[in-house]
Amino acid sequence: MEYQLFYWPTIQGRGEFVRLALEEAGAHYVDVARGEGGMDKLAAALREVEHPAFAPPFLKAGRMTIAQTANILLYLGAQHGLSPRAQEGRLWAHQLQLTVADLVNEVHDTHHPISVALHYEEQKDEAKRRAAEFIASRIPKFLGYFEKVMSQPGHRGHYMLGARLSYVDLSVFQAIEGLRYAFPNAMARIEPMHPKLHKLHERVAGRANIARYLASPRRIPFNEQGIFRHYPELDEAPA
Amino acid sequence: MEYQLFYWPTIQGRGEFVRLALEEAGAHYVDVARGEGGMDKLAAALREVEHPAFAPPFLKAGRMTIAQTANILLYLGAQHGLSPRAQEGRLWAHQLQLTVADLVNEVHDTHHPISVALHYEEQKDEAKRRAAEFIASRIPKFLGYFEKVMSQPGHRGHYMLGARLSYVDLSVFQAIEGLRYAFPNAMARIEPMHPKLHKLHERVAGRANIARYLASPRRIPFNEQGIFRHYPELDEAPA
Repeated sequence: MEYQLFYWPTIQGRGEFVRLALEEAGAHYVDVARGEGGMDKLAAALREVEHPAFAPPFLKAGRMTIAQTANILLYLGAQHGLSPRAQEGRLWAHQLQLTVADLVNEVHDTHHPISVALHYEEQKDEAKRRAAEFIASRIPKFLGYFEKVMSQPGHRGHYMLGARLSYVDLSVFQAIEGLRYAFPNAMARIEPMHPKLHKLHERVAGRANIARYLASPRRIPFNEQGIFRHYPELDEAPA
Repeated sequence: MEYQLFYWPTIQGRGEFVRLALEEAGAHYVDVARGEGGMDKLAAALREVEHPAFAPPFLKAGRMTIAQTANILLYLGAQHGLSPRAQEGRLWAHQLQLTVADLVNEVHDTHHPISVALHYEEQKDEAKRRAAEFIASRIPKFLGYFEKVMSQPGHRGHYMLGARLSYVDLSVFQAIEGLRYAFPNAMARIEPMHPKLHKLHERVAGRANIARYLASPRRIPFNEQGIFRHYPELDEAPA
């Protein structure tokens, strides 16, 4: 089956978590909005589908249309062996993914604490205040949580769930990648306190399909229209 | 099976979406933190479980511990017939639930736009600005979306998914209930533009198990520690 991914063509954004899963799986997919007439196709699909999406990303898989990033990964994980088969493991993976989603929402709001309808420049003062709090208490809380998961007495192996890679690992990789881009000074200080996550990031980056993808033009560079944005005034001062 | 729900004992919060599903299902459950020594038990459970939660709510179901509100509902929906059996319907229900979760996150940030670590009074100016934007553009966008779902040409029946109640309906009911509490003036203006949602709310409130629950002491009243808070200065002026 060939999937159709519908997402904004110029940013990584939330769609990137889906792209990474599709790439790791070696799945056939078209990133619809990046092709010719892509934005028109995206707009048309948003109007037409039987199960409308509140917002991109959404994935067409045969006759199904699936939206919400974590929900798409729930589906792809089951289709491509990127999540455990048993219910307990599948729910655990999804729980972790939803926690990544919470982190991503909070990252977005560091540069848009007041409204998505306003430009960054219109909420810059509030953004500075929110970003400082995010760096001081939320990055450590989220990374500390994921590090703890990998440090539990019963944890075996080098991935979030244990010995086998899951879509959660790809998303944690992307979250770290994005945090490094957005807050390089803060991450230079905080990341070394999380050695298991640091190694997980390296391990995912080194996987054949992911390494090939990251080096390809399919990987859109980070920029200041996406979720992870680098505004130096929102980062902490260098050490 | 008797479930154990772990959530803050004095607020509806995110736990309420789980409570409503348990009540509708007529499931046996203990709301652990509301019993004697409850906060100690909650704190202990947060430390002890094999699959640690980032934050409450979490549910113990036999030997499983499941966290993240939408994930708990994914599980309970399947166990108690509160979601479709087929994959497509189940993913559609979950997609809608995750959209409710997005709304809930945004409601929270109307009174805490800068940081959960600060009091409301310390971010009141930013809260006023964010709440005004939320009322102007986000409530209409979310309610408009859910109204559209119920107005699709292929939609049959009086519930979000069609003829049968699902956990999504309970959550949409709770979202409307909470928005009415938090922003009574804005909702008095906006809600009548969404007649299908208005009826859905009535229909859910009238279900036997839900009506009994809402009238019981198990239903914690809304208050200014929860997600939906009524600060008159954040609402719009009365019509």
